[in-house]
Amino acid sequence: MTNPTATLLISCPDQQGLVAKIANFIYSNGGNIIHADQHTDFAAGLFLTRIEWQLSGFNLPRDLIGPAFNAIAQPLGAKWELHFSDTIPRIAIWVSRQDHCLFDLIWRHRAKEFIAEIPLIISNHNSLKPIAEQFGIDYHYIPITKENKAEQEIQQLELLQKYNIDLVVLAKYMQIVSEEFITKFPQIINIHHSFLPAFIGANPYHRAFERGVKIIGATAHYATTDLDAGPIIEQDVVRVSHRDTVEDLIRKGKDLERIVLARAVRSHLQNRVLVYGNRTVVFE
Amino acid sequence: MTNPTATLLISCPDQQGLVAKIANFIYSNGGNIIHADQHTDFAAGLFLTRIEWQLSGFNLPRDLIGPAFNAIAQPLGAKWELHFSDTIPRIAIWVSRQDHCLFDLIWRHRAKEFIAEIPLIISNHNSLKPIAEQFGIDYHYIPITKENKAEQEIQQLELLQKYNIDLVVLAKYMQIVSEEFITKFPQIINIHHSFLPAFIGANPYHRAFERGVKIIGATAHYATTDLDAGPIIEQDVVRVSHRDTVEDLIRKGKDLERIVLARAVRSHLQNRVLVYGNRTVVFE
Amino acid sequence: MTNPTATLLISCPDQQGLVAKIANFIYSNGGNIIHADQHTDFAAGLFLTRIEWQLSGFNLPRDLIGPAFNAIAQPLGAKWELHFSDTIPRIAIWVSRQDHCLFDLIWRHRAKEFIAEIPLIISNHNSLKPIAEQFGIDYHYIPITKENKAEQEIQQLELLQKYNIDLVVLAKYMQIVSEEFITKFPQIINIHHSFLPAFIGANPYHRAFERGVKIIGATAHYATTDLDAGPIIEQDVVRVSHRDTVEDLIRKGKDLERIVLARAVRSHLQNRVLVYGNRTVVFE
Amino acid sequence: MTNPTATLLISCPDQQGLVAKIANFIYSNGGNIIHADQHTDFAAGLFLTRIEWQLSGFNLPRDLIGPAFNAIAQPLGAKWELHFSDTIPRIAIWVSRQDHCLFDLIWRHRAKEFIAEIPLIISNHNSLKPIAEQFGIDYHYIPITKENKAEQEIQQLELLQKYNIDLVVLAKYMQIVSEEFITKFPQIINIHHSFLPAFIGANPYHRAFERGVKIIGATAHYATTDLDAGPIIEQDVVRVSHRDTVEDLIRKGKDLERIVLARAVRSHLQNRVLVYGNRTVVFE
Repeated sequence: MTNPTATLLISCPDQQGLVAKIANFIYSNGGNIIHADQHTDFAAGLFLTRIEWQLSGFNLPRDLIGPAFNAIAQPLGAKWELHFSDTIPRIAIWVSRQDHCLFDLIWRHRAKEFIAEIPLIISNHNSLKPIAEQFGIDYHYIPITKENKAEQEIQQLELLQKYNIDLVVLAKYMQIVSEEFITKFPQIINIHHSFLPAFIGANPYHRAFERGVKIIGATAHYATTDLDAGPIIEQDVVRVSHRDTVEDLIRKGKDLERIVLARAVRSHLQNRVLVYGNRTVVFE
Repeated sequence: MTNPTATLLISCPDQQGLVAKIANFIYSNGGNIIHADQHTDFAAGLFLTRIEWQLSGFNLPRDLIGPAFNAIAQPLGAKWELHFSDTIPRIAIWVSRQDHCLFDLIWRHRAKEFIAEIPLIISNHNSLKPIAEQFGIDYHYIPITKENKAEQEIQQLELLQKYNIDLVVLAKYMQIVSEEFITKFPQIINIHHSFLPAFIGANPYHRAFERGVKIIGATAHYATTDLDAGPIIEQDVVRVSHRDTVEDLIRKGKDLERIVLARAVRSHLQNRVLVYGNRTVVFE
Repeated sequence: MTNPTATLLISCPDQQGLVAKIANFIYSNGGNIIHADQHTDFAAGLFLTRIEWQLSGFNLPRDLIGPAFNAIAQPLGAKWELHFSDTIPRIAIWVSRQDHCLFDLIWRHRAKEFIAEIPLIISNHNSLKPIAEQFGIDYHYIPITKENKAEQEIQQLELLQKYNIDLVVLAKYMQIVSEEFITKFPQIINIHHSFLPAFIGANPYHRAFERGVKIIGATAHYATTDLDAGPIIEQDVVRVSHRDTVEDLIRKGKDLERIVLARAVRSHLQNRVLVYGNRTVVFE
Repeated sequence: MTNPTATLLISCPDQQGLVAKIANFIYSNGGNIIHADQHTDFAAGLFLTRIEWQLSGFNLPRDLIGPAFNAIAQPLGAKWELHFSDTIPRIAIWVSRQDHCLFDLIWRHRAKEFIAEIPLIISNHNSLKPIAEQFGIDYHYIPITKENKAEQEIQQLELLQKYNIDLVVLAKYMQIVSEEFITKFPQIINIHHSFLPAFIGANPYHRAFERGVKIIGATAHYATTDLDAGPIIEQDVVRVSHRDTVEDLIRKGKDLERIVLARAVRSHLQNRVLVYGNRTVVFE
């Protein structure tokens, strides 16, 4: 689909006629739906849907789509987001010393696996600066200590603002982001190198080895103020055995981290992820 | 959902307004949609959808739903099926000497993993008759030879008719069903013990061993006149190694066969499988 | 291998010449090794090995193999177990109300997927008695309450003794076995319906649903006095999505539980599992 | 293990005392075994083993290890290879237009996931030259046509000789290497973007889409004169659905190709792969 599309992500109390009312809104305005998926959580009494249609031939100008849909959404008590496929989101990648997720995201970006701009890398170390230069991405070195964390986060927030960042990807940043920060900038995807909720916190591979698990995993989730407890977007696992040392777990885990983080970022950028409570619906 | 539902499976040429028109049909008649999923195959220019709604409170009597929907379907050039959740489908399980898939289907049936009646087992051997008796299912022993195949298939068809069978499950039947038979009774799900299209035909595990593959699989598909080439409903795989003998592949494969066949039968019985061309859409 | 074999499971401090000394012991007595595998945990400085050889043509009578090998093992500081393949282990299966693991183990036993005798089923409910009768296995109903637990466990131990049980399989027993019991009878394999260490304790599927995980798992482990923290023998997982209700997780999980428990029991019965610390080596 | 090791890969007719004789050879010369694994293919009557020991403290000088072991190997009718861990193998990566496997191998090499030198990239296109320059690897552009193939292969062979290449990795080279070439330089690992033996030859993803498979795979194998039929080293798969277009299969497949090829190359470089007949033993 090269011609631009609009996508509505909607969640509202389950009730009769939702599919019809939403579809009619698109159809009556001459829109051609290219993707529609919905999910009803009967336990929660919640209806969630993603609907995408082509803008060419759609009768409403862009700036009127929101207000027009809102007239329908209000009486339904619906929460909704509207996205346009040609509005390119801007990503800041935060890293520490490890480069595998950074390299992977950059390669996928070049391969057009996801459509975004990556103007900014932030790190608490200098080690990955050469990669940033190699690919022409601004690199800001912001070391973190217990003492300076608060003020450094202010600097980080200023950078996100300056670069008009829509999404922060913690690509093995290995630092806890403060509650204050997340409250001010909630759009953060983190990759945790374990099959959450197993091994929350530090050194999951070492603890997985000590526990003698036969499978290890990785989890991509939205960062929340509760450590490693945010809504899970994607997880995957790989089999290990007694022959695998901690180093082997780390090596095998890197492949998981790259793929799981990439899938989560891609789903998010395609507006396929809808969060409700502490859960996600990922529309395929 | 204990109260009965109606399900429409629809495929038609892609065009504007399909979601709206179909949803309106349900909504305008007071139906409460509990599942709706659609897929557009842009290459084929085809729109495929599954929509399920509660019958309680629906204004149309059952016998008018079809005709009423047909008035909408005709101008769209849509093909459609209508199913009611309280019409219990009747299954005939066909087996040869191996009992694992038979046992598994019977257990899942007792565990209510799928809703159906299993009044009939047909086999070209006598070996599994005790299982049939144990669970009170009629068992018909119909030996097959090159010479008698044609007439035996007539007998098999008569049994399917007599027992009002809706679906034949080839649970390791190990015999090729003739073109004539399939033409007369097309609703047949087969489990093939390989990751199709690898190892079509006989002795797939032996050939998998000889080929030295590192993964084996199983495939559930609708039987067609073209051997092992019918529309695939479900597949799964398991890792093997040089340590696995042919016997190990057979043992590991049995777990795959059971699970893959059960998933396919369950999806079919829930009217989640839509065939187009030689492909299936399995609505989750 | 129909003719009987002997298997040594050995763990000892890593040092030079271990492979040679052990192999020489077999070879010099005319033994034909059919399986040998070893693992060195360099972190723990521990050498672990499994070696299996044919008894036909072996010069030492069975009752002298142990003492003879001990003369080699002592100076090495080795711990060892000796098993003969024609000594059939006896299993007691403990169940509660769910039948899927019980059915599965019985089917696999009949299919000769593992060699053992299953003379005894113990349950805190009466519901599965018909299955026991159907397959001619003694069924003992031992209800458990906070008050009677201690005395009931004495009765359970007496039954294990009376039936000469070598291994207890907790096939969804859903009761915690006391420290006293485990100390007196340590050979217990449990299936836990989560990907441990995630969701230790009760209702793992409900908690997995609440946590919104994208993958669920099952874990077979040796029971220890520390709840769900014993050495892990086998784990496996299956992908789930937002469409899966708690009931779906339970249904999908049952397939995992059956397969994971069966693999663990089979490995244990083939003397392929060596426990050290809280970890297992599973020799393939 | 930073201090150098020697590794023997041995295959010979199964007979008594093999483990003892081989282990004694190492032990009697003061070697400390750090890895030993063996496999017996009873059907083929073949014993295969990998044994690795530390060279420090080993009494035999390197140049005498081979001759000394040969004295033992001859009477056993054994075929064997001897490798030293500090002899760094040299790899030539062959590519066409796609860069994902090339990038991946270079990244893993930098991350020390495998120990080798990568002095040479050969391609039938110029497109990936910038990557070669970026990482300081010589890049030779050798276009291939039906007419010039024979002479170009001579040039390719000269380059392999000039650069002292031990292993050619076809990282999506998309060209068939001639029988003559393979006969002269047999050490070639190829990645095929399907789950072999399914979809041998061209456009496997398109054919997988047409066949409507629910799982796609990738296969790393040694190139032989028989197209896509060489000994399989590693395979892996990923689930797909009706929602996946051919482009989605290609994108998902790239992740498989990278991981499967990397695992195969790593196992080969660690001398863990033993080929017999058309099968491989991959010692973990």
